Amino acid sequence: MKCVVLLSGGIDSSTTLAIARDMGYDLHALTIVYGQRHEREIGSARKVAASMGVKEHRVIKLADDLFLRCALTGEGDIPTNRTLEEGEIPSTYVPARNLIFLSLAVGLAEVIDADAVMIGATAVDYSGYPDCRPEFLSSFQETSILATRRGVEGKPIKVLYPLVDMSKDKIIRKGIDLGLDYSLTWSCYNGGERACGTCDSCRFRLKGFSKAGLKDPIQYE
Amino acid sequence: MKCVVLLSGGIDSSTTLAIARDMGYDLHALTIVYGQRHEREIGSARKVAASMGVKEHRVIKLADDLFLRCALTGEGDIPTNRTLEEGEIPSTYVPARNLIFLSLAVGLAEVIDADAVMIGATAVDYSGYPDCRPEFLSSFQETSILATRRGVEGKPIKVLYPLVDMSKDKIIRKGIDLGLDYSLTWSCYNGGERACGTCDSCRFRLKGFSKAGLKDPIQYE
Repeated sequence: MKCVVLLSGGIDSSTTLAIARDMGYDLHALTIVYGQRHEREIGSARKVAASMGVKEHRVIKLADDLFLRCALTGEGDIPTNRTLEEGEIPSTYVPARNLIFLSLAVGLAEVIDADAVMIGATAVDYSGYPDCRPEFLSSFQETSILATRRGVEGKPIKVLYPLVDMSKDKIIRKGIDLGLDYSLTWSCYNGGERACGTCDSCRFRLKGFSKAGLKDPIQYE
Repeated sequence: MKCVVLLSGGIDSSTTLAIARDMGYDLHALTIVYGQRHEREIGSARKVAASMGVKEHRVIKLADDLFLRCALTGEGDIPTNRTLEEGEIPSTYVPARNLIFLSLAVGLAEVIDADAVMIGATAVDYSGYPDCRPEFLSSFQETSILATRRGVEGKPIKVLYPLVDMSKDKIIRKGIDLGLDYSLTWSCYNGGERACGTCDSCRFRLKGFSKAGLKDPIQYE
């Protein structure tokens, strides 16, 4: 029983990989490189994949210029201390990212005859992204059934998103329970030797560890 | 008013581009290269795009190894004289292709602030592909609304598939009406100097021209 797990090397996707392992799946990790994602992050994905005993780890590159107009990929500053208006979408939103990533994961799943794809989308602590909401994720499941041979043949590829209603501290505690070594993960939006500790991603991470009553094992500036 | 049109350089996508032009859209063509798609085909896409006055033509490459186990991308023979059982999916099916292509088109549409994406999927003369059916295409529209900033903000990117119920001869007649020069297009699955005339794609093309009472302007072996 195979599962394709989208893996960035951050807290959420790494925990998702640990959950897939715990469910007994043979793990096929898929890392998609785009825009200015730095080597640091891809290295973390590789380390996490190795530590979880994945059968195969594919790293594929997507055309950079598909993802413009986003703080993460080069235009605009990376936000710190973000406070969002009700319903506001953060500047770090990457157009249609999870739609594209899940579509590629489903394509790979069909190629390798996997039963499921898994994504670490969460609508709780890092909210505001339309493509992290459960209504998008369940709609994607329906569309992907209609798109694929396996769907037509009555063996749909399951779309799993186990973190969708979990807060960051709960996610971290789950990962710890499953033996995940968070020192291998990387969350910082900036690509330095040490995490900056001030970008939104670092702040959510630190807050998660703090609420979980744990010390983040990575080093900060 | 901008539209992202998926363009392979074949009959269907080229006609779709002509329809988008006729509808008054500023044209942004997107060609996605994968597997063993040959240069001949990409060259045709470029010529068609130029002839239709597109504002911009992006050609992006997708990791080859995502699309294995498909006659078109290297494993298995390219079928000729195909006869399908009821409900059978052809060996030229590429796993989740239109799901992936449409997702990339929607991502690009959001980046360039386009109002629509358009695909030349047709469920009539070249049927058997799950991801060419109207039920998939309308489901994708719903999912893409949930996935995107524009969807959330009430300005959804339209997903248009004007050929879905048109036969090949009707498609060809439509293109001729709109001034499309089919000598620029390429359909053959094999990458030779002249089209083979015997692969499924050539056969559907030739039959389409024949039924339309027209001579196919490209050269065959």
